[in-house]
Amino acid sequence: MRHARYIYQGRMHEGVLRDGELHDEQGRRVPMEEVVWLPPISPRTVYGLALNFADHAAELHLEKPKEPVLFIKPNASLIGHLAPICYPAGVEYMHYEAELAVIIGRAGRRIRREDAFHHVLGYTIANDVTVRDFVGNMYRPPIRAKGWDTFGPLGPWWVDAADISNPHQLAIRTYVNGDVRQQGNTQDMIFRIDDIIAFLSSFTTLYPGDVILTGTPPGISPVRPGDVIEVEIEGIGRLQNPVVEEGASS
Amino acid sequence: MRHARYIYQGRMHEGVLRDGELHDEQGRRVPMEEVVWLPPISPRTVYGLALNFADHAAELHLEKPKEPVLFIKPNASLIGHLAPICYPAGVEYMHYEAELAVIIGRAGRRIRREDAFHHVLGYTIANDVTVRDFVGNMYRPPIRAKGWDTFGPLGPWWVDAADISNPHQLAIRTYVNGDVRQQGNTQDMIFRIDDIIAFLSSFTTLYPGDVILTGTPPGISPVRPGDVIEVEIEGIGRLQNPVVEEGASS
Repeated sequence: MRHARYIYQGRMHEGVLRDGELHDEQGRRVPMEEVVWLPPISPRTVYGLALNFADHAAELHLEKPKEPVLFIKPNASLIGHLAPICYPAGVEYMHYEAELAVIIGRAGRRIRREDAFHHVLGYTIANDVTVRDFVGNMYRPPIRAKGWDTFGPLGPWWVDAADISNPHQLAIRTYVNGDVRQQGNTQDMIFRIDDIIAFLSSFTTLYPGDVILTGTPPGISPVRPGDVIEVEIEGIGRLQNPVVEEGASS
Repeated sequence: MRHARYIYQGRMHEGVLRDGELHDEQGRRVPMEEVVWLPPISPRTVYGLALNFADHAAELHLEKPKEPVLFIKPNASLIGHLAPICYPAGVEYMHYEAELAVIIGRAGRRIRREDAFHHVLGYTIANDVTVRDFVGNMYRPPIRAKGWDTFGPLGPWWVDAADISNPHQLAIRTYVNGDVRQQGNTQDMIFRIDDIIAFLSSFTTLYPGDVILTGTPPGISPVRPGDVIEVEIEGIGRLQNPVVEEGASS
């Protein structure tokens, strides 16, 4: 089942997709072209992984990490399907990062690898938008680089864990204006979903609704205002967001 | 006015302190020694600043930063007054960081320095507990170093902004087992509260309840299980938390 949060006729709904059609809580069909898509869940905390695909680390000339390299994406950065991504004034290099997002459904601490998937509610698609200009040589997280308002597209919907037979066998693709720019497969993650859940929960309690972005495959490249980014993950869908100049949006 | 969140007789309350006595929402007196203190607010996002006191940066042999060095503390790390701080097994160097915490009361984006204080609801005390062992040479935020469950004591209460005549003129002190270990004053912040609010809101929307930890003065030193840490800020109060061995708590 695919679950979506959206605004329709001025009200927020949590509905489902059935046979490619969007429905509301009462099972009534809702015309998709008339809704405003929201991030499909409202997370408590969004954890991200940097450098979780060896080829992507290589393209950044960085070593393969020995343990998961984590950051937190501010909730304020999250947007839904079709919402505009802000291109900050004066920025030289913004890129997309297509990522499988894991949604936690059951709280846990010190979760063992073999139990990790019992804590997964489902999956969605994330675009971990990053401005390379801001990454610089910071002592600590470049919050601004990945945390700018609108840098967290998520959606369009989330898919039940039971509907994804193997989350480590999903093709990931990013299209810019229709052309494939990034291609990968979740089979190439350095730290796999169960590794990440075990590592994270070794020091922090995971709560229902927490989201983990599992890292991006190689193939990042710059985008500019006017571009349309689409992130596609096999078995989930396609998350589309236009890039707009600062001021035109946020 | 001082505002607290606490559990009393199995229920959560949001009360106030008056003449040194704790009251509930109906104005009834509540015996302080019988309550469980919670973090005085439930933030959406907790932003922290590293190296915001020049002397503290110097004691870590790091340069004074040119712009605020930000990180995000996971909400799961927050605890209230008197709750135990977990000392993870095998750790060599845990320390306290006494910090003035600013609570946002009004949402804003691109807040101008001169308007910054209109967005401040009040102040509380934070102990930005850090395990130096985990800071290491990470490419990104050492989430584990500052984000371990219980590494975010906050409280005991928050104080209305109107009751603090000058937040840049407050003595900060940390006591370990009653001895003064850290001393400073908010007048020595490199980036002041209005600078930080302007910088943060230049890229992210600040929401009511968001918290900003404004950095720690010099004087960090190791603590061990069995120690009791007290962070005191002039005009606010004293936040006390014992350090306990992992397993004894979380």
